[in-house]
Amino acid sequence: MKTINYLLGYKNLHIVQDPDMFKFSLDSVLLANFVVINKNTERILDIGTGNAPVPLILSTRTKAHIKGIEIQKDVALMASESVLMNHLNDQIEIINDDVKNYYKNEDKKYDIITCNPPFFKVSEGSNTNLSEYKTIARHEVCLNLEELIKISKSLLKTNGSLVMVHRPDRLVDILTLMRASNIEPKRIQFIYPKKGEQANMLLIEGSLNGKPSLKLLDPLYIYDEAGNYTSDVKKLFEDIE
Amino acid sequence: MKTINYLLGYKNLHIVQDPDMFKFSLDSVLLANFVVINKNTERILDIGTGNAPVPLILSTRTKAHIKGIEIQKDVALMASESVLMNHLNDQIEIINDDVKNYYKNEDKKYDIITCNPPFFKVSEGSNTNLSEYKTIARHEVCLNLEELIKISKSLLKTNGSLVMVHRPDRLVDILTLMRASNIEPKRIQFIYPKKGEQANMLLIEGSLNGKPSLKLLDPLYIYDEAGNYTSDVKKLFEDIE
Repeated sequence: MKTINYLLGYKNLHIVQDPDMFKFSLDSVLLANFVVINKNTERILDIGTGNAPVPLILSTRTKAHIKGIEIQKDVALMASESVLMNHLNDQIEIINDDVKNYYKNEDKKYDIITCNPPFFKVSEGSNTNLSEYKTIARHEVCLNLEELIKISKSLLKTNGSLVMVHRPDRLVDILTLMRASNIEPKRIQFIYPKKGEQANMLLIEGSLNGKPSLKLLDPLYIYDEAGNYTSDVKKLFEDIE
Repeated sequence: MKTINYLLGYKNLHIVQDPDMFKFSLDSVLLANFVVINKNTERILDIGTGNAPVPLILSTRTKAHIKGIEIQKDVALMASESVLMNHLNDQIEIINDDVKNYYKNEDKKYDIITCNPPFFKVSEGSNTNLSEYKTIARHEVCLNLEELIKISKSLLKTNGSLVMVHRPDRLVDILTLMRASNIEPKRIQFIYPKKGEQANMLLIEGSLNGKPSLKLLDPLYIYDEAGNYTSDVKKLFEDIE
């Protein structure tokens, strides 16, 4: 059943979602906040946009044109509804297509590509109890990391950025594939659920044809010892009116 | 001028050092504590052992045989003096040689190889004001990362571990070179000088022919906000009698 929610912490933004398909999560908020935007940023592409949380949040930070591409028709429809509802149809364009087809005919280059990709290899722990919607969003059935990075290479401007959220156990794959495609890793931030635990998410930015110089940002903890959001996470939501 | 000091935090260990050459530093203590040793560990090799802080500390944790190899004669002599002074000559063997020659005739395989290698590429910021001792210890003039990893591959047992301390800006190099040599990265810990700053060190363990499964350990902060060692760092020194 579709519901209309406020986009977590963004009181001026509504988002259409259906818990039976999937809901946007903290991943997307962290990803959208990790992106570095400047006044020369003209075009942003969000690959696998889902119900468009990343384009919606980015629209609060830039006037750049944002394109979200989503392979699943019902999900892309929700994304379009959210865009319309927020009167953002001049800025955000939703495409319902497979990026593996779409990019071949795309003649534009992008300053920034964002992606909250499927995290899991198909082989590992593929859960057949999930709906097809969730399977496609979480498992590399339609798009794997290597394909994503190759597509990004062909769609980025020189020095354009690929920005992803992913899981730390894929770090070696991410860095080796990025470098093999001349997308040089420039900034990484690890996300820890709480102190004393292993990181369970990472944010990474790579730059097409960038020079090697990697920065490891201060880690981000999600919960404090009492189980509440840390002030760093709360701040992500409070910076926005 | 040579001095004899207690090995930082290790009240039973003495170390011979000469500040004009170099002194062991916190790097080595962190490295030696990051190593995972078990009861099957028989042989450990420390490449570029300097004045042998890593073998000395490891000797408090294991009865395994530890070999330290050091290219600089005067430094290797100090290492040998420290070993003798601590009555560890049955356990620790110091070799004065270039590991690039030595490994070709080495018929033993190791459970663990440790290394606190030169951090800097020769091109970047090579400081000609440094003594030759310090230049060799800090810059890749005698041994670069690629050579170190290839040598480790040929000297490790299957599932043996290469354990290094290095700098985060070399992370992509480290991971890609390790994987290219079938030394699969298994554990990483980033070291931050203090909260809110970028990581300035990393500890990494890779396993020869290991399966991909990377753990990002809880970050370690060196100083608290008052500029004192954090309890995590103090604990490294207090665990030892």
